[in-house]
Amino acid sequence: MRFNFRAVLAIQGILAMLLGGFMLLCLPVSYIYQDGTAYTFFMSGAFAIVAGFALWYIFSRSGDSELRKKDGYLVVTLGWLSMALFGAIPYLLSGTIPVYADAFFETMSGFTTTGASILTDIEALPHGILMWRSMTQWIGGMGIIVLAVAILPLLGIGGMQLYVAEAPGVSPDKLKPTIRATAIRLWLIYLILTVSEFLLLLIGGMNVFDAINHSLTTMATGGFSTKNASIAHFSSPFIHYVITIFMFLAGMNFTLTYFGLHGKIKKIFENEEFRYYLALVIIVATLVSIFIYNCTDQTYELSFRQSLFSVISIVSTTGYVTADYTTWSPLLTMIFFMLMFVGASAGSTAGGVKIVRHVILVKNSLLEFKRLIHRSAVLPMRFNDKPVTKDITFNIMAFMIIYIMVFALGSITMSYLGADFTTAIGAVATSMGNIGPGLGNVGPSSNFSEISIPGKWFLSFLMLLGRLELFTVLILFTPYFWRKY
Amino acid sequence: MRFNFRAVLAIQGILAMLLGGFMLLCLPVSYIYQDGTAYTFFMSGAFAIVAGFALWYIFSRSGDSELRKKDGYLVVTLGWLSMALFGAIPYLLSGTIPVYADAFFETMSGFTTTGASILTDIEALPHGILMWRSMTQWIGGMGIIVLAVAILPLLGIGGMQLYVAEAPGVSPDKLKPTIRATAIRLWLIYLILTVSEFLLLLIGGMNVFDAINHSLTTMATGGFSTKNASIAHFSSPFIHYVITIFMFLAGMNFTLTYFGLHGKIKKIFENEEFRYYLALVIIVATLVSIFIYNCTDQTYELSFRQSLFSVISIVSTTGYVTADYTTWSPLLTMIFFMLMFVGASAGSTAGGVKIVRHVILVKNSLLEFKRLIHRSAVLPMRFNDKPVTKDITFNIMAFMIIYIMVFALGSITMSYLGADFTTAIGAVATSMGNIGPGLGNVGPSSNFSEISIPGKWFLSFLMLLGRLELFTVLILFTPYFWRKY
Repeated sequence: MRFNFRAVLAIQGILAMLLGGFMLLCLPVSYIYQDGTAYTFFMSGAFAIVAGFALWYIFSRSGDSELRKKDGYLVVTLGWLSMALFGAIPYLLSGTIPVYADAFFETMSGFTTTGASILTDIEALPHGILMWRSMTQWIGGMGIIVLAVAILPLLGIGGMQLYVAEAPGVSPDKLKPTIRATAIRLWLIYLILTVSEFLLLLIGGMNVFDAINHSLTTMATGGFSTKNASIAHFSSPFIHYVITIFMFLAGMNFTLTYFGLHGKIKKIFENEEFRYYLALVIIVATLVSIFIYNCTDQTYELSFRQSLFSVISIVSTTGYVTADYTTWSPLLTMIFFMLMFVGASAGSTAGGVKIVRHVILVKNSLLEFKRLIHRSAVLPMRFNDKPVTKDITFNIMAFMIIYIMVFALGSITMSYLGADFTTAIGAVATSMGNIGPGLGNVGPSSNFSEISIPGKWFLSFLMLLGRLELFTVLILFTPYFWRKY
Repeated sequence: MRFNFRAVLAIQGILAMLLGGFMLLCLPVSYIYQDGTAYTFFMSGAFAIVAGFALWYIFSRSGDSELRKKDGYLVVTLGWLSMALFGAIPYLLSGTIPVYADAFFETMSGFTTTGASILTDIEALPHGILMWRSMTQWIGGMGIIVLAVAILPLLGIGGMQLYVAEAPGVSPDKLKPTIRATAIRLWLIYLILTVSEFLLLLIGGMNVFDAINHSLTTMATGGFSTKNASIAHFSSPFIHYVITIFMFLAGMNFTLTYFGLHGKIKKIFENEEFRYYLALVIIVATLVSIFIYNCTDQTYELSFRQSLFSVISIVSTTGYVTADYTTWSPLLTMIFFMLMFVGASAGSTAGGVKIVRHVILVKNSLLEFKRLIHRSAVLPMRFNDKPVTKDITFNIMAFMIIYIMVFALGSITMSYLGADFTTAIGAVATSMGNIGPGLGNVGPSSNFSEISIPGKWFLSFLMLLGRLELFTVLILFTPYFWRKY
């Protein structure tokens, strides 16, 4: 099996051109607010388009545009990487983030929809830059949708075959002809939800600029805010609840939302992953609200609102903050830490492990006990009323094991790079899960500015790893991948 | 499948009688040191023997002594539990540990060879009680040897079938006739090593009493010391190195030691798990010694000695202390925390996950990448030059997943019971791994006295869970287990 490097690079060119287009979309914002970033966006956009065109022009001439499986891993990983490389330019050019490691971190955090920030004063940024920052997340979210629907299942990543069977009109056999149609359909939903949230936030009293930015970053489960205090900046309970609901929706399988918009509400509730997602959020948020109520002198409504918001924010891997979960009690810190490993639904813009995997892992664990007693019996597992083969379960367990291994080695690495114990594990968990806030020095009231430069590069790498479901990136580090046969 | 409760209870009676015998063995110590515990041991021993005899007499009369598989889980779990229940009596009767939760914790920590202690002043204890405390670990170690060789593989626990193939003259098919012979052979090695260490400690200048106690608790990978400062109490480097070597030996597969004593040194180095065990200890101890050297003003010899001692202490799950690993640097705290999940060799007295499982998990993870590229290819895994089936790998992955789940839920529970974040995860990791020292308030310089009463019960439960490789205990909590068919 040979690589088709030319086609891979040509695609990077197309991505760069698209990115340039998005940069130019920030120009109106620069003009409206006269924030002096027009030059930045014009130059960055032009550069990305010209460089992208050059890449495409040079490498697409060979004519062989067919991508083989191995090329797929390269396209995806390099795609996200070159987005982050190009996407960092506006920060550098405008002088808002002068250090490249910082600009790269912020951009990677954007495109991976993580939402971790190295900025200490977000509100001091020009409007154009804030807009670009939110846009990186929204673009990242669009990328994830295609990735989840079309690419990852084809690449056979950690049990995600399971998800494909759920997408409408998509099956592993006849995927290719419908990728385009499915992606466009899901992007439309993404757009509809973004616009709906924008309108509701306006109604809630948010100004146009903030409403645009927050709806972009909610739907991407990104979590970048235009405010230093994140959503805690806004005192309106209405705004809190609107964002809570849209974070939840963004963590839902977009295919289900598609059914929902077509009035097939029953289909949503028939979906097993959705039921567990809903149940998890309700149960944990209720318990957490009681704990918050008991250890603060807040009203129950506020405790409930903060609880629901925080739980959905972490589970959906958005990472917005209305209250600092590390300040309530050790129990709540622990609960939120563990929630970082949940991740919301497959086929959403959420990062992390994903609920479908957890459900299969728990079901299999229970089956293991049955298997001990009746070793020879065939004990089938079902998910969404379809049988789950042992091979898929095997796949998912291997994914989880590798996730834990990366987490362990990542935590040791972050400690080596100077983070204290709690900060290290929190930073690694939140980066791998594409969430945003962590624990300790990178907790919800803080940011990633104090992390060392090598630490920032490393966490950027972990964000990419987590976003692309580990295998896509890690496989590039195996000698096996590069062998030519 | 019906339970044979009578036979299960009759066996508990035999265990209680044996335990009573061991208690009486502490009588000479009481007499020699005239520490006033003679009454305690006479009464406890007599009670255990009488109660045990009564149990045995009542329940063995049915005549049906055959145990079925399900009975096996009951025998093992109840066995350890009743050992801890009876074994706590001397602490209570002597008044040295007046609270039952404390006494139970200390005894369970003994029999599971964990070595976590609730005692704040160990040196104030009467010699008889110290002797009993060390003896619980040595007895626990004997129990583990039978468990590892004979029982767990029969019960089909988490990939431990793999180990059976390695035991001399033992194979799953013809296990029963040789259990007795194998156990006696391995116990002999256990005894020989204990006596050898005792003699070497004497040569090193330790007094007879301390030498007996430390050799008992080293070979069990237990870690109870007769000194408040643990092994740090002894300044002799010779003693440190002797204990280091014997901790390493206690973490080795006893079958290999058997080969070694018969001069078949080559067989030891041919064993894959041993090679990884040795390599891990050498590599990690070397790295850690450099880190210690860099962050203290100690000599390199002392740094190396502390590093080797601490690494082997944690990996072998012994838990002796010559230096507090949480005081050096965040990196070292993190490394030692992660080492708590290693565990030494299967077929040793060590607790934890075990190296064989980790090796298979890593090998499988690497294979997963190959499988992604050539989905249809059959990619066999080998361990000790024998093929490892996908079923065994499946088993081991499920074990690891359940281990992590228990760790996560356990950490949340400990936080709920009042422990801070670091203390909670440290206490759970060290209890499940049967190690001893944890992190935070239960770090190497501290003890478990400050843990709440419910917390102590819960950690005792986790010690038992970890010691019996999770499944043996957890299966009793599944409704499926109790169904009569």
